[in-house]
Formats: sequence, structure tokens, C-alpha cells
Amino acid sequence: MDERFEKLEPIRVSALDEILGEPFKVLDDGFIRVIDYMGNDSSIVQAARVSYGKGTKKMREDRGLIRYLLRHHHTTPFEMCEIKLHLRIPMDAWRQWIRHRTANVNEYSTRYSIAIDAAMKTLPGEWRMQAKVNRQGSEGFLEEELGREMTEDELKLHAFARDIYNKRIESGVAREQARKDLPLSTYTEAYWKIDLHNLLHFLRLRMEKNAQLEIRKYAEIIGREIVKRWVPVVWEAFEEYSIGSTQFSSKEIELLKFIYSGEKEKVNELAASLGWLKEKEGNLSANIERMEFEQKLDELGISYPW
Amino acid sequence: MDERFEKLEPIRVSALDEILGEPFKVLDDGFIRVIDYMGNDSSIVQAARVSYGKGTKKMREDRGLIRYLLRHHHTTPFEMCEIKLHLRIPMDAWRQWIRHRTANVNEYSTRYSIAIDAAMKTLPGEWRMQAKVNRQGSEGFLEEELGREMTEDELKLHAFARDIYNKRIESGVAREQARKDLPLSTYTEAYWKIDLHNLLHFLRLRMEKNAQLEIRKYAEIIGREIVKRWVPVVWEAFEEYSIGSTQFSSKEIELLKFIYSGEKEKVNELAASLGWLKEKEGNLSANIERMEFEQKLDELGISYPW
Amino acid sequence: MDERFEKLEPIRVSALDEILGEPFKVLDDGFIRVIDYMGNDSSIVQAARVSYGKGTKKMREDRGLIRYLLRHHHTTPFEMCEIKLHLRIPMDAWRQWIRHRTANVNEYSTRYSIAIDAAMKTLPGEWRMQAKVNRQGSEGFLEEELGREMTEDELKLHAFARDIYNKRIESGVAREQARKDLPLSTYTEAYWKIDLHNLLHFLRLRMEKNAQLEIRKYAEIIGREIVKRWVPVVWEAFEEYSIGSTQFSSKEIELLKFIYSGEKEKVNELAASLGWLKEKEGNLSANIERMEFEQKLDELGISYPW
Amino acid sequence: MDERFEKLEPIRVSALDEILGEPFKVLDDGFIRVIDYMGNDSSIVQAARVSYGKGTKKMREDRGLIRYLLRHHHTTPFEMCEIKLHLRIPMDAWRQWIRHRTANVNEYSTRYSIAIDAAMKTLPGEWRMQAKVNRQGSEGFLEEELGREMTEDELKLHAFARDIYNKRIESGVAREQARKDLPLSTYTEAYWKIDLHNLLHFLRLRMEKNAQLEIRKYAEIIGREIVKRWVPVVWEAFEEYSIGSTQFSSKEIELLKFIYSGEKEKVNELAASLGWLKEKEGNLSANIERMEFEQKLDELGISYPW
Repeated sequence: MDERFEKLEPIRVSALDEILGEPFKVLDDGFIRVIDYMGNDSSIVQAARVSYGKGTKKMREDRGLIRYLLRHHHTTPFEMCEIKLHLRIPMDAWRQWIRHRTANVNEYSTRYSIAIDAAMKTLPGEWRMQAKVNRQGSEGFLEEELGREMTEDELKLHAFARDIYNKRIESGVAREQARKDLPLSTYTEAYWKIDLHNLLHFLRLRMEKNAQLEIRKYAEIIGREIVKRWVPVVWEAFEEYSIGSTQFSSKEIELLKFIYSGEKEKVNELAASLGWLKEKEGNLSANIERMEFEQKLDELGISYPW
Repeated sequence: MDERFEKLEPIRVSALDEILGEPFKVLDDGFIRVIDYMGNDSSIVQAARVSYGKGTKKMREDRGLIRYLLRHHHTTPFEMCEIKLHLRIPMDAWRQWIRHRTANVNEYSTRYSIAIDAAMKTLPGEWRMQAKVNRQGSEGFLEEELGREMTEDELKLHAFARDIYNKRIESGVAREQARKDLPLSTYTEAYWKIDLHNLLHFLRLRMEKNAQLEIRKYAEIIGREIVKRWVPVVWEAFEEYSIGSTQFSSKEIELLKFIYSGEKEKVNELAASLGWLKEKEGNLSANIERMEFEQKLDELGISYPW
Repeated sequence: MDERFEKLEPIRVSALDEILGEPFKVLDDGFIRVIDYMGNDSSIVQAARVSYGKGTKKMREDRGLIRYLLRHHHTTPFEMCEIKLHLRIPMDAWRQWIRHRTANVNEYSTRYSIAIDAAMKTLPGEWRMQAKVNRQGSEGFLEEELGREMTEDELKLHAFARDIYNKRIESGVAREQARKDLPLSTYTEAYWKIDLHNLLHFLRLRMEKNAQLEIRKYAEIIGREIVKRWVPVVWEAFEEYSIGSTQFSSKEIELLKFIYSGEKEKVNELAASLGWLKEKEGNLSANIERMEFEQKLDELGISYPW
Repeated sequence: MDERFEKLEPIRVSALDEILGEPFKVLDDGFIRVIDYMGNDSSIVQAARVSYGKGTKKMREDRGLIRYLLRHHHTTPFEMCEIKLHLRIPMDAWRQWIRHRTANVNEYSTRYSIAIDAAMKTLPGEWRMQAKVNRQGSEGFLEEELGREMTEDELKLHAFARDIYNKRIESGVAREQARKDLPLSTYTEAYWKIDLHNLLHFLRLRMEKNAQLEIRKYAEIIGREIVKRWVPVVWEAFEEYSIGSTQFSSKEIELLKFIYSGEKEKVNELAASLGWLKEKEGNLSANIERMEFEQKLDELGISYPW
């Protein structure tokens, strides 16, 4: 073999091989398990350099390059790692999951097989209340007693729905039609394969505090139990540069600049020109852009200039 | 303007403009309507030729090129047409629909808004029976009386599920959680945008006789009412070359050749070598590859040589 | 028609219809022209709301929603607008362009037709020098005299390469092979169709100051001449939230916080722990993460704390 | 661990592990080598069944399922295998390669590094002539003497282009600009990662006899040396059902039926109605659809009925 080339060995990550096939429990009856994967931290570097060998210079240099690539939103080298998971998840959460299109999927077929006999149950203390500001969020919990009622109703509904499903099947109704009234909480299973770049994108959205709790629990496991074991250097960078980062618009940067230099008048002038300082009965009206900026000021420990 | 270039006019298809926004009814409460589209038959030719002008030579030449491109599985010119639909469909069918990844989607959000108060109902005569051979299909219908029972049960389940949903909402449960036990038959709505190449792929799979009836009804409307109006030349070619076509494997071609030339012995020799002629108690055992070939022989009006 | 529905009219943007088909000149012989498009600012809102009508509430509300969606990295509503361009561009720049995979492409075929007889020429004053820090960038220009020599050489090479190409064609060599030694500067043409979300992603990368000048010139035209006319509300938000934005990592936010509160010691402690303050012969060593943070401090008008 | 689950071992294919990293030579200076892969024949079955264990029933059943899935154009289970290649290829062929969008790519950067000092050379006996019928193909070879002249010219051009490139680099021109006149025959390198479904699609197009010779040589190696070792059951099925298959349109099936049953009159009636039998000076005019059907009749050993 030409001396440029290096005979390669399979790339394995022992921390991940150790848990191959073992389920992480999620929700009341769900799980995630790693079926297979391709690549590790070094594979990213190897591809970015289109290198002939195993792609390992000194680990310190590799780390610097990985961090640089992630910080500057390079995507293709991270696509060079791939992971395959087996998961069990309520259809309701799966409906959100499947919207991530750049992934490979084989879902358990309820046309071909009898539907999984399990639906996600909610405990009395777990009923979340509708958030007031965020129209698509939740905050706080229903009081226990009311929750108990909700839970009892749910159990009845699950039982009724399953009875009807079973009766249909026994009467000879086709599985593809019998399933039509299963509750969205029914568990499904799938093989899901995705590259690291798209997985990080998934995690960024689904680990976020506004993501729905159910899918967030899966994302947390994938991030903190799986990706962290698999590509620890990437994970560290991802926490710093992506999950933990804060973005300022061009106007917000201008405002910050004036705040730093103490030009209070200019701050207010600019804010006013953006329509942020309208008043209603002596108070500032709700303005979502201003409120988002205020949150960022909180992070920076800066008091509001208005 | 340089004389190579031609000032372009918006490309409109009057047959489609006439029905813009008008719903085609599907199932008991679903619909499909065209919201917008880009391109027509000529746009395919224009792009394939990377032409400067409107891309219309003689229509006869255009037709020949379109047919050639489709027959030879060219894909990129057909991606140059795009359509946007608004549809209302049971979540159960939508779960299949969404698996077509190369499309743009905005679905009605039941996190943000109250779930649509409609679920697909099945009439007493519409309960399909499980197919015997095709594990994921259906054939024939349940007898009316049993069907009536099924329908009554279903109505009860729909009512119960909706009551529980409403009760949750009234009690202040977050919409994102209240929805968890809605039946899969609940209607959802979506904007769905896709290019013509990927739409034809969708139609090939979903107009097929083995596709589930519910999604097939949507596909039929899209094909025969919408695509046919939009790009009639493509549609004609698609019916001939794609939906209506039959594919023979290399072995099947060999067999056909021997059948034509009357070499019965060679036919049986080859079929035997493929494992197609095993017997069980004096009859040919079921063999799926042989049976699929027999279906093709039926199409050709040729009697089985074994 | 059911009263929920609204008969729809084709959605047209007059500012774009006016220039349909008209070429914007780029480089010495390139161009971009709009062939067709689908949707406008309101289409984004219409899809995000899965609305029945034309999707126009008050424009002020629409604007707020569009800005919210873009600021919070929503992507699917922006995929509901689509544009088709015809462009002429040197193969060298096209090689970068084509890496954006989520687009539809028909390129002029030099297998099928004679290669375009034009190559991008560089004027004596346009030869850029290799950047020192950024290994993949350029900065400053070669002195005129040396540039003149470069340009003369280039013209000779173009002429020689074309002569050889022509000679091959005349000798009967297949076009697919004759083209093999054309210079990368040879112009090609393509139809390119992409949705607005992916187009904005393209612009974010290719309008960026580190993008190669040649492709940047195309991106500038698309952004400032085409997208701005097409979806002015999106464009305004894009300039504020995307092109003009600045991102701080979790560590940088911590540093900023200490800087604001005047805790100089903590700043230096944290910076040191990140390895940013290593010295070499009495000066701070080059550290790319620190230098990037310093640039952001420059933007904020803050002097470096080390 | 719950007894449903099985601890998994890394899935390796020894026939592929043996050649990991070893280059297959292609063209005069190109190569392909396998860097890594995920999955094997059984992984397809495992995913299709969403199974808990390793997914191996009896190999005979697995084979039947794989063949069924491929024959019926199922795609998602084949996406569950992934392969990563390192290749060296002339930019001219790479320009075709990169059009396959559903793949992950890292290409050697000539902005960042000095361009590879190698261009594909054509030997005197290798100059192909332009095909007469297929406007984008080649057939036969230039006579040796003329070929020698072509080859000499090419060497001069390569040398001249490289001199100019080197001179630019030495004069301080930025690499991103210096490269602009490299010939398309210049070699580039890339890491290319793709799933098995999309790889088979690539092979179907690029192993085809009308594909350009240069890319076909790469495709042949990938198919016959790599995929065949990796997933032998898939490869066998692919050769029968895909590469070796023949497709008949609905009209062609009708014609075949009449031919089989000896209804010569109906054959000619239908053919005439399709416009296939127009005459010009006593001979049948060229008609591409008829000629393509005639080729299929040749395969079947049937003489033309007209």
C-alpha cells in the first residue's frame, strides 16, 4: 500500500460501547437505547482536514479545531458522525419529533402489527397549567385534588379506547382501520438515525426551556447521557457556544454600547424610535422585543435603563 | 436590456387559477385546496434547457422532451414546479403523510390553539376487514350489523374523549398536555408545499392500490383534480410511464424470453433454480416472488408455464 | 363554497414583477435574473397561522409576527416562499454555490452543448493577496505592475485553453471529454430554485465578510436587490437579527457581566482559567477565542480588561 | 436490564474491515477507500422490524425480507446503513458527483491549502468521439495519431496552467483567487458519507451505460468492490431488481399482450395511434419511443411487428 495511506481500524468509543443496547428509561414507559454509531470526536477533525490517516494530531489541537468549527457554525464536519437510536415514545411527542426531517426513520407499524398496549399516564401531581404569557407553554401544576380527577378520567379513557381497539381487532377489522381512535398518548417505537450536526440542532430546540416537557425529557437523555459519552469535546463546546449562548440583534448591540458608555439619553432615544417605550396609564406597555432585551440585561446583571 | 434576455410575465395556469382557494371535499370532514403554485408544463422545459426566454418552442417539442425526461427518470426539471396546498386530514392519515420528508409543512398547532373539534367517523358499511395475505392491508367489509355496533362504539368514544379534553381545558390544563388523549382520528390542518418531482413520488406511493384507503382518497384528488389541471402533459406521461408501468427483474426478463420462444424446459429449469417450484403435498408451495411474476403474466395475458 | 373559505387570487409582488427576467450584472460577464417566485411577506403569516383566507390581518400585526418568527429561529413559515433564479457564474464560484444542498438546480450541460465561450477575467488591479491570519482569506491587492503581468498570463492561458477545447471539438472528441481542461473560471449557467428560509441561510454565509469576494457579489445582489424587493419585512428583520447580530458564548456572557460590574479580578480569573492569558516574552500569546471576544468588545466600545 | 432488551455488540463486517483504509485505484491518479461504515445486511432487517435484539432470525428469512423490501421500493430500512469514503477524483467528475445532494461532504479546500498538483491525463488511445444519436454521450475512439496530438496539447496545457498557478502563489496572490484558472481535470479529494439507499440510487445512475466513463469507473468500484463486500444480500437483490430490471409503460404492456396473443393488427393499430409508424420515403421515421421499445423487444428476443 502506498505510504500515504494508513490501514484503518474500526473507530470505537468505549464509553458508548459499554451501554450499547441498554435502555435509558424516559416517562412512565418509554426508553432510548443506542443501537449503533459511526465516528467520534477525532472523525470530525479527520474529515475537516480530509486527512489520510486516523486524523489524530495532538488532542489539544483537535480540541481547538472542533471548538473553532462549532463556534463558527461549520456544519459538514459534524455530519461525519452518525448515531442510531431505538426509542419508545408516546405518539403525541413523536408527532413533534418526526418534524425533524433530516433523519432516517423506521417506525413500528400498526398497520402490520397490533398496536403497543401502553399509553402514557399522567399522575395526579403532573397536570400542568396553561402558561399565561407564552400561549404555547405551561407553568405550574393543577392542585392535587383536581389532578386526581383528571388522572382517573384518563385511566377510564385509556381503558375504553383499548377495549374498543381490541373489540375491533377481534371482530376482524383491519389493523390499519382499528387503530384510528387510539389516543395520542399511545406508545410507539422507532429506529431513528441522524448525523451529529442535525442531532445537535434537534437538541438545541428540544432541550430548550420552551420545548414541551415530554420531548425535553428525551432530549435531555440524548444530550447528557449519550452525546456527552460519545463526543465529549463536541458536547463541551456545544454547551458553551450553543445552548448557553446569547444573541444580540444589531439594535441591541447599539443599546448595550450606549449603556456601557453611560449615554442614557441615546439609549432612550433609540429605544423610543424602536417603539419600545410606549406608555399606557403611566406604565410601559408590554412590548415583546423590549421584554426579551430586558431578559438579556438580567443575564448581564444590568438594570433596565428605562 | 441585452437582447438575449426576455422580459418575463408571471406564469399562470388558468385552469388552476379558477379553483384557487376552493376546497375539494375528502372523507367526512376533510378537504384539500390549492393556495398557490409556481410554474407549468413549459417551466420544466425552460429549466431543462436553461433557456433565456419563456421556454416555449413548439408545444409538440415540449411534450416530447417532458415525456423523455419523465421516462428516463430525470428529476431536477420537475423540481422546478412547486405547489402549496391547504389540507384538513385525520391525524392518523397525517402520520403517514408527514413521512414524506422533502416538503415544507406548517401544521395547525394544538399547543397554541384549541384542538379542532372534529374526528373522522366511520359509517356502519365502511368497516374494512383485515386482509389475509397482505398483512398490512384490508379487503372486504364487515357485515352491516356488526359495523353498526362498531360505529356506535366509536361515537361514544369520540364523545367521551372530547368531553375529557374540554374538561381539562376548562380546568386550566395546558393545551399541550390536554391534547394527549385525543383519538388519532381527530382532524388536523396543514399548509403543505412540495415540488412536482416529489409530489409525483408521493402520488406514486399513495395512489397505489396497497396504500391505505384514507390517504389514497387525498392522493386521488391531488392527482386527478389538481396535478392534471396544473401540468396536463406531465400528468399524461406520469399515468403511462409511472403509475401504469410494470417492472421486470433480470430473471423475469429471462423467463419471459424463454416463454416467448417456447422453451418450456428452460423456463422450468430457471424457475426451479430460483426456488419457485417447491411442492407441498402435490401443489406448488406459496412463493411470493413467483406469485408476483404470475400477476405480471396475468397482465400480459400469458398462462403460467408451471 | 363553504363560508370559511376564501376564493384566492394569485399572490404577486409588483416590485418583483417589474424586474422579472431582467438581468442584474455581476462580475465581468455574469448575471442574476428572477424567473419566478411564490409568495410574499403575508404568505409567511398565512402559513404560520394555517389560515383560511389571504392571511392579511393588519400589516402591523403581520410585521410583529414575522419579526418574532425570524428572531426565534422559526424556519418552516419561511419555507413557504420560493424563488427561482437564472444565473451565469464562473464554475469556480459555482463549486461553492452548489454545496448548498437544499435547492433545486438545472445547470447548463457541457456534455450536451458546447461550453460557454467566456471565462472570468481579472483586471490588473484586482489581484488579491493572501491574508496572513485567515488562512482562507485575502487582503489587499497586488501592486499594479505585477498585477498587469498576472492578467496578461491569464489571457494567454484562457486563449490557449479555448484553442485546445475548440480543436478537440473540431477533431470529433466528445463534448463530455473535450471539456476536461477548461479553466475553473469558465462561465456556467443554471436555474436555481430555493425557499426563503434556505435562501436566507445562503445569504447569511455568503454575504459575510469572510466569504469569497466572487460569490459575495452574487449574494449581495440577491439580498439587496431581489429579496429586499420581494419580502421587505423579512429583509428588515434579517438585517437586524441575523446579519447584524452578535452571539456571546456562556463564558463570554459571564465575562461581560464581570466587566459591567467592574469586578476586574474575576474577569482575569475566568479568562486565565480559559487559557486566554498565556504570555510569551512579556506579551499575551495569540489566542483565537480571546481575540474573537476582543472584537466583540470593540463593537461594544469596551476596552480590553487585560 | 429488562429482559426484552439485548446488550448489543458493535456490528462489524469482516470483509470490509479487512480493506478499511486501503485505496482502490481509479483513473490515472484517483482512488477510493473506505473510512468507516455503520450496519450490515442484518441491520436493514433489524430496523424494518423495529426489533429489540440483534435482528437476526434465520438468515434465509432475512434474505427474503431484504429482497422483498428492495423489490417493492421500500427505502427507509436501507437508510439505516451508512458508509464513509475518502476519494480522489478530477474536479470535472466531482462536479457530477456533488449533484447527489443527500450525502455528507467535506472537500479538500483550495482556499485553505495549495491545490493538489495532479491533473487527469488522457492517453493517446483514450480520446472518445462524440456519439451521433445520444447528444450527451461518446462512442468509439479517435485514431491514435490524432489522439497523440491531443495528448501532447493536453500536457502542454497542464504544464502552462500549473506554472501560472505556481507563479501566482509565489507572487502572493491569495489561494482562493490563484486557483481560478486550474483546469477542470485537476484532482480534488473529499470525504463522502451516504446512506445505503441513496448510495444505491447513485450507483443505479452512475453505473448505467450512459453515465460518463470517468464517474462510471468510480461507481463500478464502489458497487462491485465495496457494497458487494459490505451487504452481499442487498447487492445480489440490487443487481436483479434494479440494475438488471426493465420497465414497460402501460402502452408497452398492451403492445406486448397483443404480440403474445398474435393479434398483429391490434399491435399496429395501437402503435399507429401512438404516432410510432409515420413513414418518410417508404421507411419508418425515427421515433424515440418506438426505438426504445424495440430495444426491449431485442432483450426479449422478439422480432419487431412492424
